[in-house]
Amino acid sequence: MALVPLIDYDDATPEVRAIYDDIRATRRVDWINNFWKALANDPATLERVWGSVKSVMAPGAIDALTKEMLYVAFSVTNNCEYCIHSHTAAAGAKGMTRQMFGELMAVVALANETNRLANGYRIDVDERFRDPVPR
Amino acid sequence: MALVPLIDYDDATPEVRAIYDDIRATRRVDWINNFWKALANDPATLERVWGSVKSVMAPGAIDALTKEMLYVAFSVTNNCEYCIHSHTAAAGAKGMTRQMFGELMAVVALANETNRLANGYRIDVDERFRDPVPR
Amino acid sequence: MALVPLIDYDDATPEVRAIYDDIRATRRVDWINNFWKALANDPATLERVWGSVKSVMAPGAIDALTKEMLYVAFSVTNNCEYCIHSHTAAAGAKGMTRQMFGELMAVVALANETNRLANGYRIDVDERFRDPVPR
Amino acid sequence: MALVPLIDYDDATPEVRAIYDDIRATRRVDWINNFWKALANDPATLERVWGSVKSVMAPGAIDALTKEMLYVAFSVTNNCEYCIHSHTAAAGAKGMTRQMFGELMAVVALANETNRLANGYRIDVDERFRDPVPR
Amino acid sequence: MALVPLIDYDDATPEVRAIYDDIRATRRVDWINNFWKALANDPATLERVWGSVKSVMAPGAIDALTKEMLYVAFSVTNNCEYCIHSHTAAAGAKGMTRQMFGELMAVVALANETNRLANGYRIDVDERFRDPVPR
Amino acid sequence: MALVPLIDYDDATPEVRAIYDDIRATRRVDWINNFWKALANDPATLERVWGSVKSVMAPGAIDALTKEMLYVAFSVTNNCEYCIHSHTAAAGAKGMTRQMFGELMAVVALANETNRLANGYRIDVDERFRDPVPR
Repeated sequence: MALVPLIDYDDATPEVRAIYDDIRATRRVDWINNFWKALANDPATLERVWGSVKSVMAPGAIDALTKEMLYVAFSVTNNCEYCIHSHTAAAGAKGMTRQMFGELMAVVALANETNRLANGYRIDVDERFRDPVPR
Repeated sequence: MALVPLIDYDDATPEVRAIYDDIRATRRVDWINNFWKALANDPATLERVWGSVKSVMAPGAIDALTKEMLYVAFSVTNNCEYCIHSHTAAAGAKGMTRQMFGELMAVVALANETNRLANGYRIDVDERFRDPVPR
Repeated sequence: MALVPLIDYDDATPEVRAIYDDIRATRRVDWINNFWKALANDPATLERVWGSVKSVMAPGAIDALTKEMLYVAFSVTNNCEYCIHSHTAAAGAKGMTRQMFGELMAVVALANETNRLANGYRIDVDERFRDPVPR
Repeated sequence: MALVPLIDYDDATPEVRAIYDDIRATRRVDWINNFWKALANDPATLERVWGSVKSVMAPGAIDALTKEMLYVAFSVTNNCEYCIHSHTAAAGAKGMTRQMFGELMAVVALANETNRLANGYRIDVDERFRDPVPR
Repeated sequence: MALVPLIDYDDATPEVRAIYDDIRATRRVDWINNFWKALANDPATLERVWGSVKSVMAPGAIDALTKEMLYVAFSVTNNCEYCIHSHTAAAGAKGMTRQMFGELMAVVALANETNRLANGYRIDVDERFRDPVPR
Repeated sequence: MALVPLIDYDDATPEVRAIYDDIRATRRVDWINNFWKALANDPATLERVWGSVKSVMAPGAIDALTKEMLYVAFSVTNNCEYCIHSHTAAAGAKGMTRQMFGELMAVVALANETNRLANGYRIDVDERFRDPVPR
């Protein structure tokens, strides 16, 4: 059970309702999921986090589906049950297929494996990898 | 400094050389990076992990660039310096631009933020998110 | 369900009872929570961990409420459901308000975000930050 | 070495300079630390993250020193070297003493210990802890 | 509830059945646990991961019981409920006693404590520890 | 560089020297490693943590070498460079061979992989695994 009450649209202040309206309009859905209803207990955080999500998750140099799959991937590593469910659903709505989900899990798991091998052996960065971000 | 010696091609056993050859042929590069040279101290692990990487990272339902960016993302969360450098270089070689790198960091960071909000508030999964993987 | 039976006061050995008595006296409560009842299966661990908690969590240069909120913060990042509940309750008993809980969650989440940005960009420590602990 | 160039004030765009000015004014310092100089490569992220930090870290129901020590605590658990240095320096500037730093480390370490005991034994939440956030 | 259907032996393809048969023969059990039934939705991952587990977990320079206890230990730190249960059962079947389980939890918890102390104080590696892997 | 000065034997208080003496006697070594020299800045933590390490790491139902290898394993997952070096050296002194180190890394890495698969697919615990700790 959530540690705070979930605030429904009808019980929300005008300030919170305006954010709920923006969430629904931006996402083209007719409901508000529990994450935002919980954050609404702290309207400043609701406004700030929604602003970040809206801005960061919008399509840019990386498309929206890839961003959503990245979110699923982190939710698995951080073992956030809520996030796994909500972002898998969102990724599905944006075009992730069942097969893509399977491959995503495989990459997530393998990266967690090889990260430990590199850390455990304390492998030095190759000279050629020193300045890896493209210009 | 790596905890084990890095095994160069010329010092490798025929078994290890065959894997090095496959790495170079598969990736179309003319060198072997330190990660594999360290794993070569344990040839069974070298063979098994390379087999996994070759299979999982090949393009499939998810394209190779997206998979590589996922690897960068995990390397950041697990704070694996070697992995951040090597996979950022690999993603760059596959087409990631500087702007995409910036957006990738933004998504990684934000996901780590919102994961904690969902975990901290112990938010219940919405009924609509219960069965999120597409059929 | 806990992996080991929870040992109630009436079923405990005199050695365990003495620790239970100390927990109740130190905390001024009339019951024992499940964490200690589980550890009581391994009396040496019960004694050692209670000794550490009693010593570390006592007010010192940092007051007891701040220490308790730090505990909540870690429990969120490590996603320990039991710990989130028990330490949030303890922090509340020591004076944490609902608004403080909201701000605490916001700091926890934001720190997890900016930690990844610093790690991902591999930012060098500024010279002025080299020796940061006050004398 | 940082993965991106650090952008000094003199080389920054007017948009970035305005944020740098706000950072210096808000913090009453006459310099910009490397974190912001790295984020300046992606001005949208610089603006968004600075906005979050400015808002979340301002004194509120929790005082600014406590918030800064929370930041140190997370940086230790996430093993972010840059963050440990920068936030320890910031906490020192806000009044954290050497003794408080020592106690902070002790709480961080102990919380990471007991979190694992609770997770490992899969201890059920006590009924009395079910609804722990104060009204 | 698992995010994908669990595939029973009778509903499995011949390819998946062959892996199920190998799991049962290798482990000398007459059933298949849910982990493999979930992975069977992605037969390539099932085959690859089972191959890795079979190879890595076989007795070698480290005996099978110690390897299984290592698995329990990680499952606690990563807070993977399924893994804690399944690997604790497996370790028990290989000879772990109740007392060993208690000591295992104590080591896991303590290691998570002292790791944070070393990371938090940013302690330099002693010269004598520079090259620690035995020849 | 460590965030606090390392306190050598000759500069230590009698209280700290007594603990240093106990560390050397218990471990049959003639020197003190940096970890303890850093903790000595906070004598209460030095005493408490050394007491815990001495008690938990002593041979019991689990032998001392296995306990030390568990420590190495966690240090890799938590990416604690100091701890990887110091505990690998300690495990080597207790009998870990180079081949055992290689197998240890393989188990650590694989456990981090399969933990994510179980968490990602949200696999339900099998009924047979419900009560896994041996009586």
